[in-house]
Amino acid sequence: MRLQLCTWPEVENYLKFSGGIILPIGSTEQHGPTGLIGTDALCAQAIAEGVGDQLQALVAPPINVGMALHHLAFPGSISLRPSTLIQVILDTVTSLARAGFTHFYFINGHGGNIATLKAAFSETYYHLESLGLSNASAVRCQVGNWFMCRSVYQLAKELYGDQEGSHATPSEVAVTQYLYPDQIKTASLSSPVASGYPIYGPQDFAKHYPDGRMGSNPALATPEHGQRFWEAAVKELAESYQKFLEAD
Amino acid sequence: MRLQLCTWPEVENYLKFSGGIILPIGSTEQHGPTGLIGTDALCAQAIAEGVGDQLQALVAPPINVGMALHHLAFPGSISLRPSTLIQVILDTVTSLARAGFTHFYFINGHGGNIATLKAAFSETYYHLESLGLSNASAVRCQVGNWFMCRSVYQLAKELYGDQEGSHATPSEVAVTQYLYPDQIKTASLSSPVASGYPIYGPQDFAKHYPDGRMGSNPALATPEHGQRFWEAAVKELAESYQKFLEAD
Amino acid sequence: MRLQLCTWPEVENYLKFSGGIILPIGSTEQHGPTGLIGTDALCAQAIAEGVGDQLQALVAPPINVGMALHHLAFPGSISLRPSTLIQVILDTVTSLARAGFTHFYFINGHGGNIATLKAAFSETYYHLESLGLSNASAVRCQVGNWFMCRSVYQLAKELYGDQEGSHATPSEVAVTQYLYPDQIKTASLSSPVASGYPIYGPQDFAKHYPDGRMGSNPALATPEHGQRFWEAAVKELAESYQKFLEAD
Amino acid sequence: MRLQLCTWPEVENYLKFSGGIILPIGSTEQHGPTGLIGTDALCAQAIAEGVGDQLQALVAPPINVGMALHHLAFPGSISLRPSTLIQVILDTVTSLARAGFTHFYFINGHGGNIATLKAAFSETYYHLESLGLSNASAVRCQVGNWFMCRSVYQLAKELYGDQEGSHATPSEVAVTQYLYPDQIKTASLSSPVASGYPIYGPQDFAKHYPDGRMGSNPALATPEHGQRFWEAAVKELAESYQKFLEAD
Amino acid sequence: MRLQLCTWPEVENYLKFSGGIILPIGSTEQHGPTGLIGTDALCAQAIAEGVGDQLQALVAPPINVGMALHHLAFPGSISLRPSTLIQVILDTVTSLARAGFTHFYFINGHGGNIATLKAAFSETYYHLESLGLSNASAVRCQVGNWFMCRSVYQLAKELYGDQEGSHATPSEVAVTQYLYPDQIKTASLSSPVASGYPIYGPQDFAKHYPDGRMGSNPALATPEHGQRFWEAAVKELAESYQKFLEAD
Amino acid sequence: MRLQLCTWPEVENYLKFSGGIILPIGSTEQHGPTGLIGTDALCAQAIAEGVGDQLQALVAPPINVGMALHHLAFPGSISLRPSTLIQVILDTVTSLARAGFTHFYFINGHGGNIATLKAAFSETYYHLESLGLSNASAVRCQVGNWFMCRSVYQLAKELYGDQEGSHATPSEVAVTQYLYPDQIKTASLSSPVASGYPIYGPQDFAKHYPDGRMGSNPALATPEHGQRFWEAAVKELAESYQKFLEAD
Repeated sequence: MRLQLCTWPEVENYLKFSGGIILPIGSTEQHGPTGLIGTDALCAQAIAEGVGDQLQALVAPPINVGMALHHLAFPGSISLRPSTLIQVILDTVTSLARAGFTHFYFINGHGGNIATLKAAFSETYYHLESLGLSNASAVRCQVGNWFMCRSVYQLAKELYGDQEGSHATPSEVAVTQYLYPDQIKTASLSSPVASGYPIYGPQDFAKHYPDGRMGSNPALATPEHGQRFWEAAVKELAESYQKFLEAD
Repeated sequence: MRLQLCTWPEVENYLKFSGGIILPIGSTEQHGPTGLIGTDALCAQAIAEGVGDQLQALVAPPINVGMALHHLAFPGSISLRPSTLIQVILDTVTSLARAGFTHFYFINGHGGNIATLKAAFSETYYHLESLGLSNASAVRCQVGNWFMCRSVYQLAKELYGDQEGSHATPSEVAVTQYLYPDQIKTASLSSPVASGYPIYGPQDFAKHYPDGRMGSNPALATPEHGQRFWEAAVKELAESYQKFLEAD
Repeated sequence: MRLQLCTWPEVENYLKFSGGIILPIGSTEQHGPTGLIGTDALCAQAIAEGVGDQLQALVAPPINVGMALHHLAFPGSISLRPSTLIQVILDTVTSLARAGFTHFYFINGHGGNIATLKAAFSETYYHLESLGLSNASAVRCQVGNWFMCRSVYQLAKELYGDQEGSHATPSEVAVTQYLYPDQIKTASLSSPVASGYPIYGPQDFAKHYPDGRMGSNPALATPEHGQRFWEAAVKELAESYQKFLEAD
Repeated sequence: MRLQLCTWPEVENYLKFSGGIILPIGSTEQHGPTGLIGTDALCAQAIAEGVGDQLQALVAPPINVGMALHHLAFPGSISLRPSTLIQVILDTVTSLARAGFTHFYFINGHGGNIATLKAAFSETYYHLESLGLSNASAVRCQVGNWFMCRSVYQLAKELYGDQEGSHATPSEVAVTQYLYPDQIKTASLSSPVASGYPIYGPQDFAKHYPDGRMGSNPALATPEHGQRFWEAAVKELAESYQKFLEAD
Repeated sequence: MRLQLCTWPEVENYLKFSGGIILPIGSTEQHGPTGLIGTDALCAQAIAEGVGDQLQALVAPPINVGMALHHLAFPGSISLRPSTLIQVILDTVTSLARAGFTHFYFINGHGGNIATLKAAFSETYYHLESLGLSNASAVRCQVGNWFMCRSVYQLAKELYGDQEGSHATPSEVAVTQYLYPDQIKTASLSSPVASGYPIYGPQDFAKHYPDGRMGSNPALATPEHGQRFWEAAVKELAESYQKFLEAD
Repeated sequence: MRLQLCTWPEVENYLKFSGGIILPIGSTEQHGPTGLIGTDALCAQAIAEGVGDQLQALVAPPINVGMALHHLAFPGSISLRPSTLIQVILDTVTSLARAGFTHFYFINGHGGNIATLKAAFSETYYHLESLGLSNASAVRCQVGNWFMCRSVYQLAKELYGDQEGSHATPSEVAVTQYLYPDQIKTASLSSPVASGYPIYGPQDFAKHYPDGRMGSNPALATPEHGQRFWEAAVKELAESYQKFLEAD
C-alpha cells in the first residue's frame, strides 16, 4: 500500500489498525561506470514496496536524495547536507505523528544516510516532546538497511566473495537490473579497483576512487541475482518490521 | 531520460550538450475523499518524464514532499516547513551546479510550493555567488506549473467549468486516473462543496474545507480526460523548457 | 494610528475592539538612475498610514529592508536572505499574536517580497500552532500589494501605457515625488530601456538591466500623479483590509 | 543624507569619498504608561539623521524592531530573537560591504540590543572573511548608544537625578516629546516605581515591573528637555563617528 | 601535550612537524545509581591525554557535553541537540584547519555521539571546501571510541561477561574509579537490570531503564580494572592515531 | 561539588535543597607569547570549583570553547560562532531546567563571551516559555566575570598598574601559574606592546596586535599573585552567587 495511492479517509481508517509506516530512503549519487545514479533510492523503494505488499503496510513516497556529499565530485550526484536532512526527517515524522503514526521504519539503501538518520531520530523525539504532542513518547524510528540484512550479506558473499566491495556493489547493481532490465549498462572496468580507503570529502573521495567504485566488481551482477537479493531483503525486513511493531 | 537511470559518465557526456535539467516537485497531501495523496508528485513526475522523453532532457528524481503545512490536519499529509524546503532546493541546485548544470526547470504539481520555490531560487543564486562557484552567475531556475498551463486551463474550463475548483480538482484527479487506472477511488461527495476561503493554518483549513476539497468536483474526472491533460501539459511545458534553455 | 506613537495601555485598549494590524513592508534597493533607494518602503509606509488614518487601524513600524538579493550589484541596496526574512516575519507576528492580535495585513511595496512573505505566513501559522498559543488558529496574514491594486494598475496604464515597466516604474517614483517633492531626481535615461528578461541572481540582473530599470520610464512621473496613486491605493487597500477583518 | 532618499548613482559617488554609513537601530516595545512604543527607534532615527545632516554622512533606514523579548508581556511590543537579529545585521552589513562600505556605525536607542549587536558584529566579520570579500578585513562595526553619551548622562542626572531610572526614562520620553509634540501622553503614574530588579524573561519582567517602567519618572520630561538631549547626543555621536572613520 | 597548556608560538612550532590533533569528546549524562555523570567525558579526556603523552601529540580541551537527549529524564544530564553538536564540531574543526591542522582524531567516550559526529564530519568537509580553504581537501576526521577497542572489549568480557551491559558499564565505571578513587559511589542495585530495549526518546528511555543502567552491573568495577582498561585503550588508540596520521 | 563527579540520584537530592548551578565558561585562544591557550577556561573552572567547594554548590563541566573569532589568526585558537554558542547555552540551560534547576550562574573567564552569553540568556528564557516548561518563568541566568570583580581589579591595579592591559594580562597568567606551576612559559616580550585598538575581525586583530597581547605585560605574573587573584575571585563570586540565589 503506497501512501501516494491512498486517499486521506483510507489513511484515517488504516490508523485504526496500525500506527506503523515504512519510509524508503535512498540517495542520488554516482555508482561507478555502470551503476545507476538512482540505485540506492530505486532499491529502497522496490524493497519497501515489497514489504508493504506482503504486510499490508503503508509505504511513504521515497526520499530520493540523501547524504552523499562525498560523491559530489561525480556529475549527477545530489546531496543534502546532514543539517538539512535532519530537518527533512524531523518534518516528515512530525507531520505523520500529528496524525497518529507512531512507528517509523526507514528502509534505507545508502550507508551514508545511517549516521544522519540516527542523529535525526534523536532530534525528532526531542522535538515531538517539546511540541507537547500527545503521542510523543510513543514515537519510534528505526532504520532497516537492506544491504546489511544477514541473508543479503550471505548471498552476496556466496555469489561475489571479495568482489562485492562496498560501493557500486554487484548486489545493488543486480537489484536495479532486476527492476530495470532494459537499463543494464556496461563499460570496461579497470582492475584492480581501489578499496579500503576511508571516506572524507568529495575531492579526496574522487582522488582515491577515480571511477567511483569502492572495491566492487559490478560486472558480476545479473537480473536473476537481483531478484534473489530483492526477495531476501523483503523477507528479512518484513520480519524486522513486524518485530518493530510488536515490541513493547 | 531519468537521472536515476543514468550512470555518471552518461551525465558527464550529457553536460557536453546541455546544462539543463528538469526537476519534478510535488506534494504528499490530502486530495479530498477520492483524490490520491500523491497526486501532486505523481502528476509532476509523469509530466516531467513526458517532457524529458520528448526532448531527450534529463529528469531528476521527484521531490515528493513539498510545502503543504495547511493540509496537516488530514491524515497522510506530509509537509516540509518552508525554511526546510529552501535548504532542500539550495542543496539540490548547488550539487548539480557544481557539476556544470546551469538551467533548473522545476515542473511543479502543487500551488503551495510556488512561493517557497521562488524564495529558494533567490537564496540559491546568492549562495552560489557566495561560494565563488565559477558558473554561479549562469545558474537559472524556473518553475513550470503544469496546472497553470494555458492549454490545461482551457481544457479544464471546457470539461468542468466551475466544478474544476482549486484543490482536489477533476483535472489533477483525471491525470492520476490515467496514470493509475486501477486506483480510481469513489466516495459520495457532499454538495455543495466549500470554496473561496483563503488558506491559513492547518486547523483553520480543515474547519473551512471539511472533506479537503476546495470548490472541486473530482467525480467528473475520467482517465481519458487525464490523458488529454497530460498530453497538453507535456506539450506546453516542453516548449517552455526549450525557450528557457534558449533564452540568453 | 502608528503603533510607534501609542503607549502599551492604548494598544491594550485597541485590542478590545480590533485584532487587526497593518504592517508596511518595503525594500531598500536601487530604483534606477532617478528612483529613490527607499521607494518601496516609503510608499508602503505612506499608504499604510493613509489606510490606518482612514480606518483608525494600528500601523506597525515599517519593515524597511526586504528580499532584494537580485539588486545587490547596485550600491546602496540592502537585502535579507529569504530565510532571514521568514524568521523576521515569524518573530514579528508571534510577538503580536501573543498579545492578542489575529489579523496581520502587510501592505507591501516590493514584488520581490511576495514569495517570501507567503512562505513566511505558512511557517508562522504552523509555528504558532506548535507553540500551543491559544489564538493560534485564528491568526491570519494577508499581503496587500499597493502596486497591484486594480485602480493603481488602471491609472498607470492610462498615464504611462507601456512605459510603466516593472521596476523603477513611473507610478512608484511619482508616489515618492508626492511624498518628498524636494527629492525629485533627474538624469538622462538611456532609451530604449531593457525589459522582459527574468530575474535571476545579482550579477545576471545587473548585466541585463545595466541602469537598474526594468522597462520603465520614470521621467514621466509627477508629484500630482503620485498623489493620485497614493489616494487610489489607500482607498482600495482600506476596503481590502476591512474585508479581511470581516471575513469569517 | 538618508540612504532611502538617494539614488544608486548618488551612493556610488558617495563611496568615492567615504566608506562610512550610520545605521539607526531601535526597538518596538512598551515604554511604560506614557512612553511611546516606538521610543527607541524614533530617538535613534532622529539622532542618526541629526548626525548625518551635520556630517553629510549617509544614514540607513532604521531597524525598527530589535531585541525586546523581555517586554513581550506588554501588548504592542515586538521583538526579534537574538538569533534572528544576528542574521539581520549580518545580511545588512554584507549587502553594503559588497558595495564598498567599510565603516558601520550603529546609533542605538535600546540597551537590550547591545549584546546581540556585538555578537552579530563578530559573526559578521567572520562571515565576510569566509566569503572571501576583498574588503573583508577592512570592515568595522561600532555601536553608539545615544543614551550612554556622557553629555546625555550628565544632563539627565542634572534634570532628573535618581528619577531618570533605566527604562521609560524621562530623557528618552523627552526626546520623543520634542520630535512629536502632539503625541505627549499622560497617565497617573504609581509611586514608588519598581527598580533594581534584573531582567530575565517576559513573564518575570512584567511581574516585577507591572506598569513597564524601571525606576523612572517620565512625568518630568518636557519637549524642551528633549531638544537639549537630542542636541547633546547628535554632537557627541557626530564626534564619535568621525573618530571611528579616522581611526586606522 | 594539552593544547590548553601551550602557547600559540608552541602550536605554531608543532604544526611544522604534525597536522594532527586529538579531541576528547564525552557526555554529561546519568550513568546509573553509582556511575558518575561525567563518566564519558572524564574517560575520554584521560585516555586522550594518555595517548597525547605517549605520542607527543596535541590534545584539545574536552568537549564535555555531547548528544545525550535520551538521558534527559534523569537530573544532571545535559545534552546538545544533534543539529547544535554538528555546528560545534564544524566550528571547532574549521578554527583549527584554518591554522593548518589536517588530521582530527576524536577520542570518544559515548556511543550516542557517534552518529552525530559522523554527520558532522561530512558537513564539515563540505563546508571547508565551500570556504575555499587551501588545505580543505586534506582535512580528515576520525572517531576512536575507546570502549569499542578490541582490547577493551576482550578485557570487559573476561572480567564481567554479560554483566558488562551497554550503559553505565563496569568497564567505564572502573576507569572513573581509577581516575577518581575518592569518588567511588555505592548503592543497592536492583536485579535483574533492564536490557535489550532500543533507545528512543527521553521519557521512553526512563520508562524502560528506570535506574538508568542498560544491562550492566557496575558493582563489579574496581580501580585496578580501571587502570587496565585505561592502559589498553591508550595503547590501542595510540596505534590507531598513528595509522591515521600515516595513511595517505 | 563537580556535577561530573555526582550520580544522578545525588543530583536529584541536591535539587531538593537548591535550584542553583555554577557553569564555568572560558575560551580556547591565544594569550600572547607566554600565556596558555586554555587560560580563560582553566581560570574559570578553577574559580568555579573554588566557589562550589565553599558553598557546596554544584559546578557543571566547563564550556572550554567560547566566542573567540577575533583570535583565529593565531594557531591553536578555537571559536564557536555566536550563533552556535547561543544554541549551546540554550541546550545546556534547557536540559538542566527540565530537571528543576532554576538559577544558572556562569563564571566566565573571557570578555569576548559576555555579549553572546547575554544574547543567549534572552533567547533561552523565551525558548523555555515557548516550550511551556512549568518552571520557565523561574529560570534566571547571570554572568559572573572573575576578571571584573572589584577585588580582582584592585589587586591587578596595585600589582601591575597600567601593565595589566586587557588581554593576556598578568593577572590571568598569574592564576594559571598558580594552577600549573610547571607550565610557566617565558619569552622575550616586545616593548612597547600594542594597545587601545578596538577588536574587529581576525585578520585585523592580528595586524594590530602582532604577538597577541593587548597592552599587557604578563612577565610580571607570579604564582603567588595567582593565588591571591584566585582567592579574591572565589570570595567575591561566592558572595555574588549567594545573592543571586537569595534574590526574589
